[in-house]
Amino acid sequence: MTIYVINPNSSQHVTDGIDRAVDPMRAASPVPIAARTLAEGPPGIESQAHVDGVVAPLLTHCAALEDDASAFVIACYSDPGLAALREQSARPVVGIAEASILTAMTMGQRFGIISILSKSIPRHMRYVGAMGVMDRLAADMPLELGVLELADETRTFERLKDVGTRLRDTAMADVLILGCAGMTAFRTDLENDLGVPVVEPCQAAVAMAIGRVALQKTRLEKA
Amino acid sequence: MTIYVINPNSSQHVTDGIDRAVDPMRAASPVPIAARTLAEGPPGIESQAHVDGVVAPLLTHCAALEDDASAFVIACYSDPGLAALREQSARPVVGIAEASILTAMTMGQRFGIISILSKSIPRHMRYVGAMGVMDRLAADMPLELGVLELADETRTFERLKDVGTRLRDTAMADVLILGCAGMTAFRTDLENDLGVPVVEPCQAAVAMAIGRVALQKTRLEKA
Amino acid sequence: MTIYVINPNSSQHVTDGIDRAVDPMRAASPVPIAARTLAEGPPGIESQAHVDGVVAPLLTHCAALEDDASAFVIACYSDPGLAALREQSARPVVGIAEASILTAMTMGQRFGIISILSKSIPRHMRYVGAMGVMDRLAADMPLELGVLELADETRTFERLKDVGTRLRDTAMADVLILGCAGMTAFRTDLENDLGVPVVEPCQAAVAMAIGRVALQKTRLEKA
Amino acid sequence: MTIYVINPNSSQHVTDGIDRAVDPMRAASPVPIAARTLAEGPPGIESQAHVDGVVAPLLTHCAALEDDASAFVIACYSDPGLAALREQSARPVVGIAEASILTAMTMGQRFGIISILSKSIPRHMRYVGAMGVMDRLAADMPLELGVLELADETRTFERLKDVGTRLRDTAMADVLILGCAGMTAFRTDLENDLGVPVVEPCQAAVAMAIGRVALQKTRLEKA
Amino acid sequence: MTIYVINPNSSQHVTDGIDRAVDPMRAASPVPIAARTLAEGPPGIESQAHVDGVVAPLLTHCAALEDDASAFVIACYSDPGLAALREQSARPVVGIAEASILTAMTMGQRFGIISILSKSIPRHMRYVGAMGVMDRLAADMPLELGVLELADETRTFERLKDVGTRLRDTAMADVLILGCAGMTAFRTDLENDLGVPVVEPCQAAVAMAIGRVALQKTRLEKA
Amino acid sequence: MTIYVINPNSSQHVTDGIDRAVDPMRAASPVPIAARTLAEGPPGIESQAHVDGVVAPLLTHCAALEDDASAFVIACYSDPGLAALREQSARPVVGIAEASILTAMTMGQRFGIISILSKSIPRHMRYVGAMGVMDRLAADMPLELGVLELADETRTFERLKDVGTRLRDTAMADVLILGCAGMTAFRTDLENDLGVPVVEPCQAAVAMAIGRVALQKTRLEKA
Repeated sequence: MTIYVINPNSSQHVTDGIDRAVDPMRAASPVPIAARTLAEGPPGIESQAHVDGVVAPLLTHCAALEDDASAFVIACYSDPGLAALREQSARPVVGIAEASILTAMTMGQRFGIISILSKSIPRHMRYVGAMGVMDRLAADMPLELGVLELADETRTFERLKDVGTRLRDTAMADVLILGCAGMTAFRTDLENDLGVPVVEPCQAAVAMAIGRVALQKTRLEKA
Repeated sequence: MTIYVINPNSSQHVTDGIDRAVDPMRAASPVPIAARTLAEGPPGIESQAHVDGVVAPLLTHCAALEDDASAFVIACYSDPGLAALREQSARPVVGIAEASILTAMTMGQRFGIISILSKSIPRHMRYVGAMGVMDRLAADMPLELGVLELADETRTFERLKDVGTRLRDTAMADVLILGCAGMTAFRTDLENDLGVPVVEPCQAAVAMAIGRVALQKTRLEKA
Repeated sequence: MTIYVINPNSSQHVTDGIDRAVDPMRAASPVPIAARTLAEGPPGIESQAHVDGVVAPLLTHCAALEDDASAFVIACYSDPGLAALREQSARPVVGIAEASILTAMTMGQRFGIISILSKSIPRHMRYVGAMGVMDRLAADMPLELGVLELADETRTFERLKDVGTRLRDTAMADVLILGCAGMTAFRTDLENDLGVPVVEPCQAAVAMAIGRVALQKTRLEKA
Repeated sequence: MTIYVINPNSSQHVTDGIDRAVDPMRAASPVPIAARTLAEGPPGIESQAHVDGVVAPLLTHCAALEDDASAFVIACYSDPGLAALREQSARPVVGIAEASILTAMTMGQRFGIISILSKSIPRHMRYVGAMGVMDRLAADMPLELGVLELADETRTFERLKDVGTRLRDTAMADVLILGCAGMTAFRTDLENDLGVPVVEPCQAAVAMAIGRVALQKTRLEKA
Repeated sequence: MTIYVINPNSSQHVTDGIDRAVDPMRAASPVPIAARTLAEGPPGIESQAHVDGVVAPLLTHCAALEDDASAFVIACYSDPGLAALREQSARPVVGIAEASILTAMTMGQRFGIISILSKSIPRHMRYVGAMGVMDRLAADMPLELGVLELADETRTFERLKDVGTRLRDTAMADVLILGCAGMTAFRTDLENDLGVPVVEPCQAAVAMAIGRVALQKTRLEKA
Repeated sequence: MTIYVINPNSSQHVTDGIDRAVDPMRAASPVPIAARTLAEGPPGIESQAHVDGVVAPLLTHCAALEDDASAFVIACYSDPGLAALREQSARPVVGIAEASILTAMTMGQRFGIISILSKSIPRHMRYVGAMGVMDRLAADMPLELGVLELADETRTFERLKDVGTRLRDTAMADVLILGCAGMTAFRTDLENDLGVPVVEPCQAAVAMAIGRVALQKTRLEKA
């Protein structure tokens, strides 16, 4: 049995970054953790059509893994297919956006989201509204860098510091969330630089999945 | 130029019902109104996978109509593809759920939604939350009838009256919304029976589309 | 039968501006659209006493038009008498503030309001709260220009750009609303300048009224 | 200097009831308390047109009292003219609806409102929304008795107990508000009968006005 | 019988400031007003442990005063023990944070809070959320001065003006609250300087307590 | 290193029930899980004074465990001392109320809480408000059984089924939370009986703590 972390875009280097980000948790996990790339996805998920379009192949991909899965993690900050996979699967299903927000809600009182692009923000706002936690949102601000542009680490980190500082000082955020699965490498440095907790969503989601695998054991207690 | 009303399920009789429901508005519309069936859709949209799955064919279907379209109406109460089609198209795009809720907000202070199935309700709740109008919702209650079961009109109307009465008297709704595109035939009778306004979402959406077609004309005023 | 657009202030030039703003929609309307001035109103509605004070003459004015009216539009951004006229009249009644907000909610996820004066803002906040859509508001910011001062077009447009830019960049608004019936002339230029949709409330309200006139036809379907 | 409690309907017996209700507070008030009837008002305020229509005479009435007033209390549960009188007057202005809600918020966590008529409820909902306290509302339920029908005390008390019991047991209210200035006589008996705090709004408002008169003294401390 | 104002920190000079701040209200109060210091409290309440830790001695302190008390005011902006004292005591219990917020809600539409320290703000946010009034909050911003540092009046007033200006101009607050019982001396000057109402919470709370003492008299009317 | 689950009441049999409830998770935990009783607590935490009163001894108790702790779980449904312990400790701190609510938010769209006593409910409402998730709450309803009365298992289970049924069918909850640490034994049977997910808060909290222990490992990645 395995916790499957599905990167719904087709960029293997994003999957590799996710794998590195969650690697320290493997020692604490009761089951293996495997990061997978959805071959049918676009290189980066940057539009609502991308989000909706990956749901069908994602469901197929996960159906094939169902018997071997302890839990599924959907590793894209728009949580594509989260509700659909929960309907399809008998396993715990964790979305990195939802998990990061729920985790941030225990680390601070107002969370700020760092998005890649302005056009991601209305989508995030609909999601935060759907979760019913808008009162906990400080603000969502963009780097204005696409998924693939994140690879320029120097520029990306400068933007992260700028946007993070605005979220902390102007929007009064006391915890920050990296709003894309492609920013995993920057969490620790950004947290050290800004002095507020920074949540990396793939890590938060895998942590929650590990907890859910444990919780599943109590579900079978009298069976 | 035409207002295209797309039924994203593949049931022609649902499309026919929509066509009849919006027919009285044709005399008031500056452009023709055409109801179409999405052949690629399932017979009824009853799960989140159905909702997400029709987005890709819906976008393709509408892309082919773009040049002839004055506006698009997505005629399923889960508004599948609404955000994606708005990103894709330069035309006004109206979803029947969103339009019915916005319309109901001008006819009463607390709207009640009559859903087909219990399992639709969490999906609706996420949507009402994403719209940011949860404070205006009285309640959402189910008929417990699938899309195809609605065809038994006597049973359906009995259930509509029962659920509508509970929404009005227990949940204190002062306006009701028919939460499925397959209930068009019952609006007038239900409104007469219950004595509160009843919004049929395809009609509300087409009305809004007619308005948007008019509004578009002001967009070109200085071009 | 006619859609009556009532300017509840007594300034004919404001009425003329409204008339010009909605003129392009006449070709798309199934009924004539007539803009009227409420002679009993003050030159500009800038205080709560002005708002409350015009309700009685507005109701009288509209009662006399009832038999000829397809719909009423109240063309002041405080929607004076909206609830009272809805109680009095059997026709659809549209307020420009409510209509502009509902329209903006379909064009963006966070709307910003450009008000004429600081003292208008608490009134708007009460209204946005009464509508139950506070979570969709980005911010409401003032030009600090009275209704009559708007006539200096160069100064007004400069202020509109300044305030609009702050709403877009600081408050993260992705759609803007002109918060006074006296700003109709600036919509297109402001939208082009700022690159986000700008809603002119009289146009949005008349568009909605046209839709409602169409929708009314379905209300009579079985009568 | 006097606290003026203005009944904006023209029914002297309602004013008399208010006077009796606030009489015990006179001993604790630093200034006299005078209840007055607005002669220009309707016998009972039961529609939005009534609410809006009394604002102009109310403002005139209060302007004449300004120099002798320590504070004003508007004694109708729709708080007609509250915002307008606050703009006009330099004195503290208290509305009985607002005051009763703020008071109830310190006596319980979810307040229930007992309204006279169903048609009052949408008006109240707009007001609770404008106050931004919808999350504290349990429910608002009607007696279905007009202002003048309240005079049948036996019937009124039976209805109060029925509606109050539903608010407490079904809507989970832990504090109740009498939603009309004409129910003053029933507060104590209803509270004893139901075992939850019952707020009579005229009393709550006058209590708040007494506090404000005291607070005003600190406003002058360095003048 | 006396209104007891309990300063739950052990700094007598803070108690003295409270006493001076409420002194002008004594002439308007039907009963004496006594400010007391909780000897068991810390010098300043600046952490959640401080807040929770003073509840037990506060309850003991107030139990001993119960028979002589007309009302209790808890004079720390975190309202420590408010809910617990309300369960214990038969007297009206007023917290200065709650009272200041409810009072501000009648003086403006969006209140801004001036806190002493950043670390107070999450605590305040939880409290504003618990009160259900988050939609009325403009923002909460810190002076970054501890309770004892407030004694440097020149520096404190400069910071108050800076933070108050940001709350008014950037966060669009139209009423401000001094978010600590140790800022009483600055209310009038700050209000004059900024041109918006400034609420000093001890004064607001004592005003409300005076009103409650009056209201209590109506509770006994038929006993 | 150990996950410490602190029962802040002094009833060993409640601690024993918690221990049994979380026992199945031990196999999945990277560290031991130890349930402890706070000797200084009352037999059951049923009032706000109980909640506030246990914070100081709880902080002392946990300070002594800090060096050996991987994480702390506070096992009382009022989450006493949660914010204070987070300020004091460098370890992850989980409260069972917060954790159960966040967990329920991933299992359904509207959670219902089953409380022991009516008087717990206002406390819970303040907490749900402070968490900013009121829009996700269906309702909170009481068993009207004290902590010690829960020991009569037959009666308790009957009440759980009655209240759970009302939450599911009347308040439209699609996930239920057991609102007391003393109901652990009933989770599985109640879930099977009602057909909706039932969250036992100690289990949900320990699951989250296990995840946090794993997440901590990523915090040290570059240190």
